[in-house]
Amino acid sequence: MSRGRFITLEGIEGAGKSTVAKFAVAWLGRHNVAVRLTREPGGTPLAERLRQMVLERGTETVSPATETLLMFAARGLHVQNVIRPALERGEWVVCDRFTDATRAYQGSGRGVDSSLIETLARVVHPDVQPDCTLLLDLPPAHGLIRARSRAGGGADRFEAETVEFFERVRAGYLELARREPERFHVIDAAAPLMEVEHRVAAALARLNPPARARK
Amino acid sequence: MSRGRFITLEGIEGAGKSTVAKFAVAWLGRHNVAVRLTREPGGTPLAERLRQMVLERGTETVSPATETLLMFAARGLHVQNVIRPALERGEWVVCDRFTDATRAYQGSGRGVDSSLIETLARVVHPDVQPDCTLLLDLPPAHGLIRARSRAGGGADRFEAETVEFFERVRAGYLELARREPERFHVIDAAAPLMEVEHRVAAALARLNPPARARK
Repeated sequence: MSRGRFITLEGIEGAGKSTVAKFAVAWLGRHNVAVRLTREPGGTPLAERLRQMVLERGTETVSPATETLLMFAARGLHVQNVIRPALERGEWVVCDRFTDATRAYQGSGRGVDSSLIETLARVVHPDVQPDCTLLLDLPPAHGLIRARSRAGGGADRFEAETVEFFERVRAGYLELARREPERFHVIDAAAPLMEVEHRVAAALARLNPPARARK
Repeated sequence: MSRGRFITLEGIEGAGKSTVAKFAVAWLGRHNVAVRLTREPGGTPLAERLRQMVLERGTETVSPATETLLMFAARGLHVQNVIRPALERGEWVVCDRFTDATRAYQGSGRGVDSSLIETLARVVHPDVQPDCTLLLDLPPAHGLIRARSRAGGGADRFEAETVEFFERVRAGYLELARREPERFHVIDAAAPLMEVEHRVAAALARLNPPARARK
């Protein structure tokens, strides 16, 4: 049996990742792919506890470097206990955020040294890299209106950040996409939903799911 | 005001670190030192939650590399929110375990690459290093009997390890002590308590606490 494909969804708060994730899972299901939908930080019981620690707005200061370590600890648990086993069973994995999010948020957003991030990526997932990354691109002001109206008064540590922070995150994402145009698909998240779905389906089709391969 | 001194206690399970910690705090108090007693992993609310995750024996696999990231994430919180501020206020800090424990347990014990550990140490506490490390040395079989009788049936992930694991940890600690003989004080933890306390007091006196300095 061949190894499954690893698809990641990236983008700032409010870009519509959840909607696209559901669409991608349904589309792959129609193409006879066994899919595992998961998310970061989180995806395992211990990693979800780390997610809670990273997102909650408590009284304790979490430095950008420590936040980065927590993200990669959660990722280590997730890759080892969920993502790698699923890929090895031949399942395709759709993951809401992965290491590109750390590059964009902790790296570009908070100024963490990219050499630390790349060192940790090599340690935590030397053998697991996304085959396809769907970047839902949106002006931060637009995304934050969506995310905050959804969160009500309960915005998390990231949702509570400034527009300037999300401008840096967005620029970081776009720079990553420029460097790896084969892996990244930059999708205008402000476009009509049907157009977004069309772009997502085209990106997924390029991965040759079994139903297409049998044609 | 001068910066306080940073004293760490190291050694395998059952070596008597808690008893020595209390003695050190009392001795320093008698020498007019404002002391902060703390421990790792832990020492802050979020870091104590990480401690719980690292010690509990759950069903989820935690790889040695991920365990190392969790230890340094907890250390980042602890250094930033407790240790550094206390030292800057002029307090002395007595800490039950610090980065030498990661070198011995995750490095020597579990085989994590020392270059990862040293990279993380530079990121997390470039400016905070122990002035004095008391290594309570004990044959593992001896220490495990103490630790397990104390834990009853509730041994944690480390207490449940094999004697061979603790032999590697002990050898790792002794090698660290050989490399930094000025910082380390290797104390025979199997000696009578009065002798252990005498050695601890001698090590603390070398740090010139104020009451001695006023003589």
